[in-house]
This record gives sequence, C-alpha cells and structure tokens, in this order.
Amino acid sequence: MKVMVVGLGLIGGSILKALKGTGYEVYGYDINDEVLDTCFEQGLIVSKLAILTEMDIVMVCLYPDAAIEYINMNQDSFKSGAIITDVAGLKVSVMSQLRLERDDITFIGGHPMAGKEGCGFEASSKDIFINANYLLVHEQANDVQVEILKDLIYTLNCGHIQVLDAESHDEIIAYTSHMPHILSTTFMTCDRFEETRHCIAGSFRDMTRVSDINAELWTELILENKMPVLDEIKRFKKALDAFEQYIVEEDNYAVTKFLGQARLKKRAL
Amino acid sequence: MKVMVVGLGLIGGSILKALKGTGYEVYGYDINDEVLDTCFEQGLIVSKLAILTEMDIVMVCLYPDAAIEYINMNQDSFKSGAIITDVAGLKVSVMSQLRLERDDITFIGGHPMAGKEGCGFEASSKDIFINANYLLVHEQANDVQVEILKDLIYTLNCGHIQVLDAESHDEIIAYTSHMPHILSTTFMTCDRFEETRHCIAGSFRDMTRVSDINAELWTELILENKMPVLDEIKRFKKALDAFEQYIVEEDNYAVTKFLGQARLKKRAL
Repeated sequence: MKVMVVGLGLIGGSILKALKGTGYEVYGYDINDEVLDTCFEQGLIVSKLAILTEMDIVMVCLYPDAAIEYINMNQDSFKSGAIITDVAGLKVSVMSQLRLERDDITFIGGHPMAGKEGCGFEASSKDIFINANYLLVHEQANDVQVEILKDLIYTLNCGHIQVLDAESHDEIIAYTSHMPHILSTTFMTCDRFEETRHCIAGSFRDMTRVSDINAELWTELILENKMPVLDEIKRFKKALDAFEQYIVEEDNYAVTKFLGQARLKKRAL
Repeated sequence: MKVMVVGLGLIGGSILKALKGTGYEVYGYDINDEVLDTCFEQGLIVSKLAILTEMDIVMVCLYPDAAIEYINMNQDSFKSGAIITDVAGLKVSVMSQLRLERDDITFIGGHPMAGKEGCGFEASSKDIFINANYLLVHEQANDVQVEILKDLIYTLNCGHIQVLDAESHDEIIAYTSHMPHILSTTFMTCDRFEETRHCIAGSFRDMTRVSDINAELWTELILENKMPVLDEIKRFKKALDAFEQYIVEEDNYAVTKFLGQARLKKRAL
C-alpha cells in the first residue's frame, strides 16, 4: 500500500518516522527540498519522487487553510479509490470548505491528539503517537476505507481511535483541548506576586504548563471554534459561581461534595 | 544537633528518610508503635525513646489542629533555646492559635511545598523534597535560629526557602496552590461527554491531574483560607470575563495579546 505524507513538519515528520520499517511504501512531499533530502537519506521515504495518481492514502499534514487548498486543487490527480485525510484540529470548517466533486475518492478527517514542544521536521518523533488518541471524522466513507485508515493509525502506535461527526468533534474539543488552554492562560495572567516562583508545587506547574502557548495558532483555533468555546466558558463560569457561593456560605458539606464529584469524574476516566 | 520529628506520616516519614546519614541525631514519635519500630529497624532514628527536653529542633508533622495542640500542651517540656516548627499548609490560623508563653523557645512556621500521591509512612520518600520550595513564616525568630532551620531544610535537598509573614503566605498560597485545585476540580465537574476519555491529550491530563483530590482535607484548607481564596476567584473571573468578551467580539488582536501575556508570564517564571 502506497502512502504519501504531504507536509513534513512536526506531525508529518513524526508519521514518516513511525511508519519506518512497518511495510507501508511511504512517500513524502515538502516545499523544503532539504527536508525531503533528509527523509530520503534516513530511509523514511522510498523515493523523492512521488506520483500522486498512484497513492492509496494521502495524509495532508498542512495547516488547515493550506490543507483545504491542497486537497481541492489536486483532486483530479488522486488515484481512483484513494483515501485522503488531514490532521487539522478543527473539523466543521475544514469539512465545509472541501469541494470534492469525485465519487471515487474518500475524505476522512483526522485529528491526532499528539504533539510536543517545538515545530518543524527537526522536532518530529515517532514517540508522540504512543498511546495517543486519534479522532476520525467522516460523512460517507464506507467501512472498508475507514478500516484501512485505522490500520495505518494503529501502526503509528496510537492507543485509541474515536470516530465522530464534525460538529461533535468540535464541541468535545472545545472542552477537552481549548478549555485547558483558556483556563491555564487566564490563570497565568492573574499572577501578581513577586514570590510566586518560590511558592509553587506540582499543582501550579501542571495548571500552567500549556501557558507557554503559540498565541497566533491558538487565537485562530479558539476564534474558529467560537460558539462551542463560548458554550464551555459559560458552563465553567456557572460551575465556578456555584463553588464560590459554597465558600461564601462556608458550606462545608457542599464544598466536600463538589470536590468529591470532581474526584469521581476524574477517577472514572 | 538533636532533631525530633513528631508524626511519621507522608511528610514526617519523608523528613526522616531525607535526614538519614546526614549527621543529624534524629528521633521520631508516632502514635503508631509499628511505624516507630520500622523507623528504628531502618536506621532512621537513633532510639525509640526520645526525651523532648533534649531536642534542639522539634518538627511537628501533624495535621494543623493536632500540631497546635501538641505544641501548646508540651511547651513546658521543650529544651531552652529549642526551635519548634510545623508543616501546616496555612499559617494565619496556626500562628494565631499558638499560645507560647516562654521566651526561650522559638516557633518558626514551615510549609514544605512537596507531596505525592498516597498518605502515611508507607508513602513517604526522601525524593519528595528534591528541588522543592519550602516556605518559612516567623515573627520574632532571630537570624541564628532561622539559619539553623534553613540548614536542616537544605539538607533535605529542598531547592529554595522563602521567608514570608503569615498573611502574605496565605494570600500567595491561595493563588499558587488553592486556585489550581479549585480550577482543576471545577473544570472536571463540567465533563458531560461520553467520548471525553478518548478525546484528550496532554493539556487535559495536566489540567485535571489534581482533581483526584482529598476532598475533606481540601475543604478544610479552602474554607480556612476563605477571604484570600474568594479574592483570587474574583480576580480569575474578571480575567476570564475579559477573555470571553474578546472571543464574543472576535477580537483577533486582543485574544493574541492575552495569550501572549500569559506566555510571557509563564516564561518569566
């Protein structure tokens, strides 16, 4: 099976590395020739020349807008029966902007919940996928095509694949991914003590880890997912208001019950 | 120098283990005889018999109320010149309840910002102090006494000792420790998706790690520090309201600036 990875940055490069020696016939493409040279020298791709019309699976690992453009522009060149996938962190906007006019190719949205500090091919590592969650979003793919892509994803060493529709995906991600970043950065901006750095332990470090954020990228992600994010902020504020009121009233029982519920939910995960 | 550790749970036990082989003459006390036997067998204490009147430093590693009672009840038995310290996570209430009537003994409040999952002597480990912050709170201790206690604390392998007054301690801790627990548990209670566990990555894991909380202990800590905690919640809500408004208005510039400020503050730490 011939796989082509388009865009060999952190995610694309990591996919190449994770697929090395697994039996897939892997090709790559990047606008940076040096990266392609490196991949060939490291045996990550079988050739620097990739013929799109021969590829069974095309993984487009570009930023959302570039991915949409690549897929729409190249659709006439895909092999009949090909599976096309992306790695964008939001799905409603990507899916709605795709203009696929061929019935014999299938787009299945992908969202690897994997990453690490740094960016670009230099930062890529096959380890980022170990036990990671991988989300798939599709409308009319048949089971065989989904299974082919799933096989590839499990080959990366991902731990679980969750299939969702685009709307559910973006709503859930607003909670599981966007909110941790929003709460962490908001909490970090509240710092006003000279002594903070000498008065912290693990809870503070955990809470603020993602505050060292790519501000431009996350502005785009948050604003692109505006309504689900605002919905989650509203829910959070409501819960925090309730907790605050228990403290104001010194309601020992209610505070303990609230914290106990959080513990139960955490443990249930 | 003779050191006595009273209460050999997670913190007390860890102190004994960290002091092993460091030159201090260490004694311990616990209401559980078996723990004391174990400590003696492991060479953590020089004798199971400890004469309070001979101890140069007494570290009371009990829960706050028990620590206050122990110190007040035993004050006539402390050696002249002895340094007494505790490990309570809040200082205003502890300091205000101490009834020390002797001028020849010194109380210096202590707060090791170290811990781990589990509790009791079985969970104790010398490693919890490595590079940890340790806070000291005192009113009228002289420099020599503070230095003696600092030497002991650095011997535990702590990374930094910060001296504060009781009010500042409790205010800063409301931000650096109580708020991460409040935000984490509040966020966890907002979960309502079946799919959450399969749609998370590192940011969610970091954000919710401390949600597996000792609900009774933290109810006490939060309510005991009511006013500083409410002040921090108010500040956080104000910041979150502002961020929310930027999103409502789709104010790209303001969102990026907000996230950028968080990144700067995080990096400054």
